[in-house]
Amino acid sequence: MRWFFNFSSLLVLLNFGMLNRSCEAMSTKRILVYGGKGALGSVCVDTFKAQKWWVGNIDSKANDIADVNIVVDSKSDLLEQEKSVIDQLQSSLGGDKVDAIICVAGGWAGGNASSKDFVKNCDLTYKQSAITSVIASSIAAKLLKTGGLLTFTGSAAALDPTPGMIGYGMFKASVHHLTKSLGASNSGLPAESTVVALLPITLDTPMNRKFMPTANFASWTPLDYVSSLLVKWCNNESRPPTGSLVKLETENNQTQTKIV
Amino acid sequence: MRWFFNFSSLLVLLNFGMLNRSCEAMSTKRILVYGGKGALGSVCVDTFKAQKWWVGNIDSKANDIADVNIVVDSKSDLLEQEKSVIDQLQSSLGGDKVDAIICVAGGWAGGNASSKDFVKNCDLTYKQSAITSVIASSIAAKLLKTGGLLTFTGSAAALDPTPGMIGYGMFKASVHHLTKSLGASNSGLPAESTVVALLPITLDTPMNRKFMPTANFASWTPLDYVSSLLVKWCNNESRPPTGSLVKLETENNQTQTKIV
Repeated sequence: MRWFFNFSSLLVLLNFGMLNRSCEAMSTKRILVYGGKGALGSVCVDTFKAQKWWVGNIDSKANDIADVNIVVDSKSDLLEQEKSVIDQLQSSLGGDKVDAIICVAGGWAGGNASSKDFVKNCDLTYKQSAITSVIASSIAAKLLKTGGLLTFTGSAAALDPTPGMIGYGMFKASVHHLTKSLGASNSGLPAESTVVALLPITLDTPMNRKFMPTANFASWTPLDYVSSLLVKWCNNESRPPTGSLVKLETENNQTQTKIV
Repeated sequence: MRWFFNFSSLLVLLNFGMLNRSCEAMSTKRILVYGGKGALGSVCVDTFKAQKWWVGNIDSKANDIADVNIVVDSKSDLLEQEKSVIDQLQSSLGGDKVDAIICVAGGWAGGNASSKDFVKNCDLTYKQSAITSVIASSIAAKLLKTGGLLTFTGSAAALDPTPGMIGYGMFKASVHHLTKSLGASNSGLPAESTVVALLPITLDTPMNRKFMPTANFASWTPLDYVSSLLVKWCNNESRPPTGSLVKLETENNQTQTKIV
């Protein structure tokens, strides 16, 4: 009797454990971080992993923390990159869809029309901002769940003319327009999904600290503020209306969001 | 005496003729038409030739009416196209500069994010609108005269979200931003130059008539209205302020310009 009791207790415990793991697998939320090896992207991958999300990284470099890495050749053209990303994702996800896609890929390159690198930097900023955002949109149309979230990274500076960084401004402006189009009716995104662009002024990245060592860091937006905001929106808390451009304003180490 | 008189008259006439030709050469105004074999571009080439301008055509196809043709491979990337255009232009112009550059290259491709050709059409509209405008800007920085004119072709539709033609909207929006940046201080354009984007609603082209045969053509903007407007601006008459987006509104066959 004592043996029997112990054995059945063990069976119950085993069954409960299996059920628990099964529920966990079913409820695991999935996010794709486009640019998940960059400064902001790495913090996002860490944050979502700490929240027990399944995280896929899409980047030119793998992030060992991510569950899956989709490595892209960021120098190739839009059509080649998109095909490669979609093929790899469909194979990795095996028919599953994702709860969120956050495109935090980006970069910066300056120059006015007479600068030596004007055209080169237009090409670079097109690849950094526009190509990644178009591919993220294509992924969303194919692999985002109903009610899912898609975010882009725009730029507060690109709300105005940017004569000293012409390519950067023009392609961030294209990301803003993309956000508004995807947020309108019949844009091709899944039903009830939300698309938002974050418009930082300056993010507090190691690279920005290196190149602007005397700036007032208290007016820069911390990366973990951004990743926490994204976690909240991904959990469907306080999401802005779809199609919104959300400016991040930081003053005295306090950040506020403002729909512009 | 009679022979001498005739001979000197001949010399005078010859000198006068040479002087005349020299003055004519000095006063001949030069324009580059980017997309000068397209529907609007061909009309512009004809119109400026009729006004005795020297006309260079930059297009994937030559225009026999033009004085010089710079043929580009519109399928290659931005850096390749720009190098090819600048090399050919510097060779053709032999150190001269131009009075105006009008970028009337363009096209249209639709589709929302779930359409089969979404990414392909983003790539196409990037090439049609953004690449040509960036190269025109680079030409302007290098080869436009002080006080010259640079124009782009934007789109009135892209002032709003364009969910049914996402790529078209996002890259026309990038052209609008480019216009504003180039119109700001220290943009790298020659001193006193003017940059303007024309924002048509629908141009009355043969292709548009073919694909929208039942539309109200009286609300479409005639191509010769656009070319006449460009002639006026090129002659420095009624130019809008630099950085302007100029919408073309046509109703009952009457077109008005409106700075937006």
